[in-house]
Amino acid sequence: MSSSVKLNGLSLSQMMRSIEQGEHSAEDMINACFDQIEARESEVNAWQFQLSREAYLAQYQDNRDFYQSSLLKGLPVGVKDIIDTKDMPTEMGSPIHKGRQPVDDATCVALIRQAGGIVLGKTVTTEFAYFKPGKTQNPKDLARTPGGSSSGSAAAVADEMVPVALGSQTAASVIRPAAYCGSIGYVGSRGEYSLRGGQPLAQSLDSLGLFSRRVEDIQLLRSVLLRQSLSEVDVSPKKPVQVLVCKGELIGETSVAMKDAVVRLTKALLAAGVDVIELESGSRLQDMVEHHGHIMAWEVCRNLAIESQSPEMLSEPLQQLMEQGKSMKRATYLNSLQAAEDTANWIWSHSDQVEIVIAPAAADVAPLGHDKTGSPHMSRPWQAMGLPVITLPGIVDAQGLPLGIQLIGKRREDDALLQIAKWVESIIS
Amino acid sequence: MSSSVKLNGLSLSQMMRSIEQGEHSAEDMINACFDQIEARESEVNAWQFQLSREAYLAQYQDNRDFYQSSLLKGLPVGVKDIIDTKDMPTEMGSPIHKGRQPVDDATCVALIRQAGGIVLGKTVTTEFAYFKPGKTQNPKDLARTPGGSSSGSAAAVADEMVPVALGSQTAASVIRPAAYCGSIGYVGSRGEYSLRGGQPLAQSLDSLGLFSRRVEDIQLLRSVLLRQSLSEVDVSPKKPVQVLVCKGELIGETSVAMKDAVVRLTKALLAAGVDVIELESGSRLQDMVEHHGHIMAWEVCRNLAIESQSPEMLSEPLQQLMEQGKSMKRATYLNSLQAAEDTANWIWSHSDQVEIVIAPAAADVAPLGHDKTGSPHMSRPWQAMGLPVITLPGIVDAQGLPLGIQLIGKRREDDALLQIAKWVESIIS
Repeated sequence: MSSSVKLNGLSLSQMMRSIEQGEHSAEDMINACFDQIEARESEVNAWQFQLSREAYLAQYQDNRDFYQSSLLKGLPVGVKDIIDTKDMPTEMGSPIHKGRQPVDDATCVALIRQAGGIVLGKTVTTEFAYFKPGKTQNPKDLARTPGGSSSGSAAAVADEMVPVALGSQTAASVIRPAAYCGSIGYVGSRGEYSLRGGQPLAQSLDSLGLFSRRVEDIQLLRSVLLRQSLSEVDVSPKKPVQVLVCKGELIGETSVAMKDAVVRLTKALLAAGVDVIELESGSRLQDMVEHHGHIMAWEVCRNLAIESQSPEMLSEPLQQLMEQGKSMKRATYLNSLQAAEDTANWIWSHSDQVEIVIAPAAADVAPLGHDKTGSPHMSRPWQAMGLPVITLPGIVDAQGLPLGIQLIGKRREDDALLQIAKWVESIIS
Repeated sequence: MSSSVKLNGLSLSQMMRSIEQGEHSAEDMINACFDQIEARESEVNAWQFQLSREAYLAQYQDNRDFYQSSLLKGLPVGVKDIIDTKDMPTEMGSPIHKGRQPVDDATCVALIRQAGGIVLGKTVTTEFAYFKPGKTQNPKDLARTPGGSSSGSAAAVADEMVPVALGSQTAASVIRPAAYCGSIGYVGSRGEYSLRGGQPLAQSLDSLGLFSRRVEDIQLLRSVLLRQSLSEVDVSPKKPVQVLVCKGELIGETSVAMKDAVVRLTKALLAAGVDVIELESGSRLQDMVEHHGHIMAWEVCRNLAIESQSPEMLSEPLQQLMEQGKSMKRATYLNSLQAAEDTANWIWSHSDQVEIVIAPAAADVAPLGHDKTGSPHMSRPWQAMGLPVITLPGIVDAQGLPLGIQLIGKRREDDALLQIAKWVESIIS
């Protein structure tokens, strides 16, 4: 292991291997993470609640035998504050739920704890995973937004405070902050993971998300969430036969730097012998941005029924979204659900051989300022279709700011998507 | 209003009209419901928790102005004990969650309270809405099972303790107990209602359910859950042009009495000028029973991760289901999800004109005994396909025991299904 990499900069899988091989102890890793948090948290503000170093180490030491024999070795995990935890509040980024203490862990949290992960803390979310930003700043440039809504999870992982974190995506809440902060973000296929205890925003759109710095960690956490052994799954890198390229303009405004990033990845794929075909033009994906908005407005308005009773405690954009959902005709909502299904069929009808789509993960690098979290439009179409998505860092603009590219897989073919992502990771890093 | 109908026997909509017209007060209705509970609960055992008459009336009187001007007038609703309530425990029929007190109402509960409904109590559920029965007995014959898992909701509504109740269905948990007890049971299309705060069992199968004694009450509660005014929706009875009849044998064992019930309804439809076509034979629906079981086993095993840590507190059938899900190959699960989608397409491909399917709601009348809740197979295929379903009472066997017939609609066409159900209700009652 190179001495230039700090322990907290290792991936979760690398940490586990280092512990198993006796190079370092779990406490070494845990302390390195806390050192980084102490150095950086006052500027990054990734955490809504967190264990102190002492409390964390006490939890580890009280159950040392369990953690040492466990899969995840007592290593730290961040959990977006929209996901219930029985030992820490879950406030959903809203004053309405100040101090709210759930009685149960969400299932995803329980599974990670059972596998030997320790929840270091709850990461900052925008208000109800929608638009109103929390306190987090982009670790790559503090003057910029980290993106949202899983702002704290993306920032904490990108800034090497924790190796992995949980998030959720209804519009662009995993892919956008991962792209802006320079971490990996993965969104599972719709229906893939239990969302029990993850507070829903829109049932036809919500997906669980994961953040890491290496694809192997996504595969690892996926196996934990599915209660499968990693040995049951093919996790080897896989070169795709054919990919479909979706240029940003097909969805909406895209910066020159982002267009260039797509071209760079396309060239790398071609050079490696991958067959690359371009998604035909037309307005279908731009239309999907709007359809996604309809589905979201209809469902959020109904999911947030409790909160609708305290309008004075809701942000202006959320109130507007709920108003839109309230006054929307049901036919509009149903039409948008149908359009999402039709468009997914259309995407994969381009070729029998196509395995993934590549597309910009965001319109540009993270925008300056903290009053907004950037445009979600690059994620809306894929999210409306319920597809699994992963964004990979590694391509940067002239200033060194991250430009994420997303890989989009077929519904429920998350394993194949992650195998391909592992291969793409190897050619761009 | 006929003097032979007791007030507690009125539908929710009838109660509301009577109050609006000044014939009776809400307190009259509430007291009639409590009279019935006091007379019958020691035998029926529908309730896990309930407000006392005094506590209920105090809640009503403390907010009399709100309730009097509200849609639902302060009238009582039962809530299945798998659905969170902030003022009563939610134990999910399991000793693991004895005394569990959620911090929030489920969204469906919050919406009903906002519309002026009062939660009279929590109704008995089987263990985690799966097989192990609770204490409820069938109000039509105490020696028989009420069916499950929404046992208490079905029994309380059928026995006129409350006009309406909430339930949920993952296999047959609404349709079967409604059929056995002689109430109406309605299962929403998959994705139709917010399930926030309703404890999930299997995300690809779970649907919210409603119990009532008149179709108009289902339409009423649906409008509350969708935050729509009833005036925005066409709720008039609608005679279908064409129905598809699914005989029970296509799914599995069916009693002579149930076969006869389907024939009787078919004759009534033909006599009314409805075009009736018979679903072609083959094994697809029988296969769907098995596919449903695969999906359920895979997902329950993951959703009940917390509970899997206390195997000694789980029933034998639930342990077996979770074991099945743990050892199942992922390909089996994915194959079953695909089969459900393909079978739904196949059903509706029979004719462009077909609007609903009619089928037995259960294999027979409620079986004798309380150690099991009856076979779920008549519901499994439709539930796997995510279709909206309503079962109507009114047809009985030679002993007068209820034989429910279910009407199955197209996904997301719940409004049309309810309009047709309202018309069918008029020809069989």
